[in-house]
Amino acid sequence: MSAAKIGRRGLLLVLSSPSGAGKTTLTRMLIERDPNISISVSATTRAPRASEVDGRDYLFVSAARFEEMVAKRELLEHASVFGNRYGTPRGPVEQALKSGRDVVSDIDWQGTQQLAERVRQDLVSVFILPPSMAVLESRLKRRAQDTDEVVHQRMAKSADEMSHWPEYDYVIVNHDLDESLGHVQAILTAERHRRERLVGLAAFVNRLRAGG
Amino acid sequence: MSAAKIGRRGLLLVLSSPSGAGKTTLTRMLIERDPNISISVSATTRAPRASEVDGRDYLFVSAARFEEMVAKRELLEHASVFGNRYGTPRGPVEQALKSGRDVVSDIDWQGTQQLAERVRQDLVSVFILPPSMAVLESRLKRRAQDTDEVVHQRMAKSADEMSHWPEYDYVIVNHDLDESLGHVQAILTAERHRRERLVGLAAFVNRLRAGG
Repeated sequence: MSAAKIGRRGLLLVLSSPSGAGKTTLTRMLIERDPNISISVSATTRAPRASEVDGRDYLFVSAARFEEMVAKRELLEHASVFGNRYGTPRGPVEQALKSGRDVVSDIDWQGTQQLAERVRQDLVSVFILPPSMAVLESRLKRRAQDTDEVVHQRMAKSADEMSHWPEYDYVIVNHDLDESLGHVQAILTAERHRRERLVGLAAFVNRLRAGG
Repeated sequence: MSAAKIGRRGLLLVLSSPSGAGKTTLTRMLIERDPNISISVSATTRAPRASEVDGRDYLFVSAARFEEMVAKRELLEHASVFGNRYGTPRGPVEQALKSGRDVVSDIDWQGTQQLAERVRQDLVSVFILPPSMAVLESRLKRRAQDTDEVVHQRMAKSADEMSHWPEYDYVIVNHDLDESLGHVQAILTAERHRRERLVGLAAFVNRLRAGG
C-alpha cells in the first residue's frame, strides 16, 4: 500500500498579499511545479482582454448570469472592483477537494474572509508581505509605467491591505522568490499530512492493526 | 531587515510512533541536519549504561530528586517504564522556546497527552506509522536478536500504540526514511511560518505601514 493510496481530502490554498508583494508570481511558479494543484478560475462580468481565454483566465459571464450565481449560492466568495463583479465558482473547487486535488487562489483579504466562513476546514491561508516599503515601491515602479502619483496611491492601498495579516494561518516575508516558493511548498506538504485531511487513515490503521 | 530578525517563538516538535516505525532514526537525522533544533534530554531514575553520558543521553537523577522535580512541577510530562521514572524537564524547553529555538522529543502518546495540556500552543505533534505490519516486523527483527515471542509481543504493543493517531496534528506513513524526513522538515518549515508564532510580526508590519 503506498502513501498516495491513503484517501486525502484536497485543500484550498489562498495566497494573499498587498499588490507588489509577489502573490501572483508565486502562484504561477507553484502551479508550474506541482502537478496536484490547479488554479481556481474566477467568474467575472468584465470584458475579456485580447490575450485572455474564457475558462482559462476567467469565466466571462453576463451581469445577469453573475446575479444568478450569487442567488443560487454558486460562488464561494464574490466582490465588486471598479464596477465589475468577480467571484470564485463553488463547483470546480468542491469537486477538486472531494477527489483529493488541491486548488490555489490569489484573492484578497475580503474574499479570504468569505471563504473562511464557507470552507473553513479546507482552507489554508498564506499572507505574503514585502520585506520593506522601498522594495515594494521598486516592484510597483518596475512593473508599470505609472505616474508617481499612481504608485503612491498603490503604496497607500498596500499599507491598508497589510493590516489584515492577523486573519491568515501563515505569514511569509518575501525577500527572495525562490525561498518564498520553498516556504509555500513546505506549507502545502505539511498541510497534506494534517490528520484531519487524511480521510482514509482510520481504515488504513484498522487494516494495519488487524495485521495487514 | 531580514526574515530571521522577525521575532519568533520556538516550537516543541513531538515525533511519536509504535516501536519499529522509525521515530528514533528520524529524530537523529533531523537534529543532524537542522541547526535550529535540539533534542529534549529526559530525566530518568534508571542507572546509566556504559556508553551513556549524563546530560547528553539522559539527566540521571535519584528517585528522591525525581519526586522533587514532580512536586515542584519541573517536569512537562513524566511516566514509569519497567519501574524506572522518565520525564521531560521544563526549564530547558521553556528557555529554548522563548529564545526562538525549536526542541524535538520522541516521547510516546502518554507523554504527548500530558504535553498537550501544558504547552498547547507551542506543541507540534507528528505520528509516524509503518507502511505495513510485515515491514514493522522485519524492522523489529533486524534491530534485535529477540526471540519470535518477544517480537510478537512488541508487534501487539505496536498495534495498541497505533490506535492513538487521532491525537496528533500530523500523520506520516514511513515508506522511506529520506522521504519521511523531508515531510518532517516541511512540517517544521511550515509551522515556523504560522502567524501565532511570529511574535515580532505586529511590530514589523507597523514599521512597514509607517513607511519602513
